Amino acid sequence: MKNIVLFGAGKSAFVLINYLIHAATQEDWLITIADLKASSWKNLYDSERLELIDFDLSNEELKASLIQKSDLVISMLPASFHPQIAKACLHYEKNLITPSYISAEMKSYDEEAKAKGLLFLNEMGLDPGIDHMSAKKLIDSLQEKGAIIEGFESFTGGLIAPESDNNPWHYKFTWNPRNVVLAGQGPAVQFLHNGRYKYIPYNKLFDRTEIVHIDGYGDFEGYANRDSLKYIDIYGLQGIKTMYRGTFRRPPFCKAWHVLVQIGACDDSYIMEDSENMTYRDFINTFLKYREKDSVEIKLAYYLGKDVDGEEMRLLTWLGLFEKKKIGLKKASPAQILQHLLEEKWALADGDKDMIVMWHLLSYELNGQKHRLESSMVVLGEDEHYTAMAKTVGLPIGIAAKHILNGKIKSIGVCLPTEASIYEPILEELEERGICFTEKETQLSTTI
Amino acid sequence: MKNIVLFGAGKSAFVLINYLIHAATQEDWLITIADLKASSWKNLYDSERLELIDFDLSNEELKASLIQKSDLVISMLPASFHPQIAKACLHYEKNLITPSYISAEMKSYDEEAKAKGLLFLNEMGLDPGIDHMSAKKLIDSLQEKGAIIEGFESFTGGLIAPESDNNPWHYKFTWNPRNVVLAGQGPAVQFLHNGRYKYIPYNKLFDRTEIVHIDGYGDFEGYANRDSLKYIDIYGLQGIKTMYRGTFRRPPFCKAWHVLVQIGACDDSYIMEDSENMTYRDFINTFLKYREKDSVEIKLAYYLGKDVDGEEMRLLTWLGLFEKKKIGLKKASPAQILQHLLEEKWALADGDKDMIVMWHLLSYELNGQKHRLESSMVVLGEDEHYTAMAKTVGLPIGIAAKHILNGKIKSIGVCLPTEASIYEPILEELEERGICFTEKETQLSTTI
Repeated sequence: MKNIVLFGAGKSAFVLINYLIHAATQEDWLITIADLKASSWKNLYDSERLELIDFDLSNEELKASLIQKSDLVISMLPASFHPQIAKACLHYEKNLITPSYISAEMKSYDEEAKAKGLLFLNEMGLDPGIDHMSAKKLIDSLQEKGAIIEGFESFTGGLIAPESDNNPWHYKFTWNPRNVVLAGQGPAVQFLHNGRYKYIPYNKLFDRTEIVHIDGYGDFEGYANRDSLKYIDIYGLQGIKTMYRGTFRRPPFCKAWHVLVQIGACDDSYIMEDSENMTYRDFINTFLKYREKDSVEIKLAYYLGKDVDGEEMRLLTWLGLFEKKKIGLKKASPAQILQHLLEEKWALADGDKDMIVMWHLLSYELNGQKHRLESSMVVLGEDEHYTAMAKTVGLPIGIAAKHILNGKIKSIGVCLPTEASIYEPILEELEERGICFTEKETQLSTTI
Repeated sequence: MKNIVLFGAGKSAFVLINYLIHAATQEDWLITIADLKASSWKNLYDSERLELIDFDLSNEELKASLIQKSDLVISMLPASFHPQIAKACLHYEKNLITPSYISAEMKSYDEEAKAKGLLFLNEMGLDPGIDHMSAKKLIDSLQEKGAIIEGFESFTGGLIAPESDNNPWHYKFTWNPRNVVLAGQGPAVQFLHNGRYKYIPYNKLFDRTEIVHIDGYGDFEGYANRDSLKYIDIYGLQGIKTMYRGTFRRPPFCKAWHVLVQIGACDDSYIMEDSENMTYRDFINTFLKYREKDSVEIKLAYYLGKDVDGEEMRLLTWLGLFEKKKIGLKKASPAQILQHLLEEKWALADGDKDMIVMWHLLSYELNGQKHRLESSMVVLGEDEHYTAMAKTVGLPIGIAAKHILNGKIKSIGVCLPTEASIYEPILEELEERGICFTEKETQLSTTI
């Protein structure tokens, strides 16, 4: 019997845990879930092969004993906690899976992991995760045919399913609200477009979107992620001319969000004076000039050169940003105030279903002919547990766990899933479970 | 005989050093200048009462002995070095003057300085310095009369004298170029306008300017400083409705600078790919969309909704930002590239003279009547040594040194010059030396 220890098991781990439970009998596993609230989930997960242990990260002794007795460790903790789990895995010589980006600290364990024959497999969820695997599969297959890949664009969005889409932003929180509010902040976005390096500062990010149409699902708009350039090496695309990774929203989300960015409403770097007694109308007014006779609405529209009856204003009005309703948050930053409002307005209602959309575009030349290959994946949530997010984050991890334990995945070191030996069995089983890509190939006239 | 030790003596210390030399005979002082290059200035400063000592801050022994033998220490070092000088002054129980903002570390010495009866007098230059003294003099005199001060606005600019103003930006570097390029970056600007807290993010700062007319000198445009609110307490203006401090430029500087801010050209947080081989035209193009057939000029104008033949584009063109000239800077940030160009274009020519402009506006109510009091100071440079900047930074420090040593200034602790006993003798002597304010009072109709 093999032991899998899973650290951290929030809402998004539901599908993963059920996958592990169902595989446990056939694969002869014992699953241990170590989480602050694990014992309260006795009614949620029912299996003889499952142990629920209340666990606090400060309990070093328990952490050590859980890892020591395991054959594989999965960390679904917040990303900043992975390195301490990884350290213990190095000590007790255990394999590890995480869904998070490889941090500098995680990367520093590569040599020791390799020396000990261990695999620390990261970026194993949706984005990062399925994005890498599906992209790398297309890239590898084209390069094997002798194609020269000239452009790669890729977008992922965690959105609301069309049947539950009933607000003008076409958005609800299906993932961490704070990350949505702070999205794009930090150093300028960098990418490559037709051989030119391009940089977009935060204040212009949501104004520089691209519209993508996906058959059967309509239009999406993508804004750029910060880190496109580093994937040139990771994907083996040296010499590529266009490299652009981004995030999907539904139009006109970005146009209206751009207004909030411009005025400074997403700023998390300072506390607003007397935020507790402020109304949402006051909140918006703090970013606008003092003009006694003019309304907040006209001042905002004029400030940004927008139509006061236009689309952006309609979305902002729907949020209640012009209402004289008290915020009631003490010592809050603009970002915290905005998040507080959005959590109310963009909350999922009972029965609401989410939707994951991923889209890749590869431009390449093969035998003197230019081609354009689109590949898209749409995953819909089924119910409040089997959300599209929980499925696309949890299943790749569960399948990876299976193939690490059964020896099919043999890589060692600190990895992300760009090797065919990793992505092939995982994408294959994802497809059986309905998580699959649709390809659309166009041959371009060379005279374009 | 009394000993004054001056640490750090760059270009801006010329007037201060001459002031100290001239006062030395009458006051019976010995002046010691401790600087990396002090001995090379033998021909610049000639006085029996002056000692020039080559000094490196890492020489702890020399630092200690210089401070120990002194009666007063002046630090004109970069602001980050003041605390180590202050520490030694505490140890040897010496008074200290600096021209810089009081840092948290400097502030932490207040208690010990008071206990030892020492004065650490900071913010003693122009801005901060003369701004505090002149503002506080107006405020104190109005409050003594029983006036209720409702609004305070204050701007200072280090600019080029009209006779040397021969470029469309109406600007040349008369002070630290890096600070000019990075101006306004960091947390959002905060101020108070008619009882309302107002916040401006960096990306809108140069779009939210105010025009001020000064008789005889024309129009200036002011953008907000970051720290207006903290001066409410420092100036004793609790309950005030408008509190706004800012920096002057000449129109249309801010409009054109706003374009550079918007596209991200002042960003110092990342290194641009292949900056060495880039041209200035490429530099601007990295911030714009890829569009094969369109020029950089039209793309920029369209991006920001500007007239391609308009004022902003004229100023940017004058800088050479659309020229195919190589930048030649290795691993440079956008801010470093921009500074490199500006240092060439905004360089002072031989004989160029600088200009300091300061302007305060106080709105107040006295005996049921609303008033408006403007007070402005314009100082022109005389030659390359007697610049307006060197005069306005150096003279207040020199005069303060005199009155600390002769006992007229009796304050103790870590101070800035907001006490009448400090600002009165200093403003008086500044006026004798031609650094003076012109007041303009308007009685407002109460029905406005």
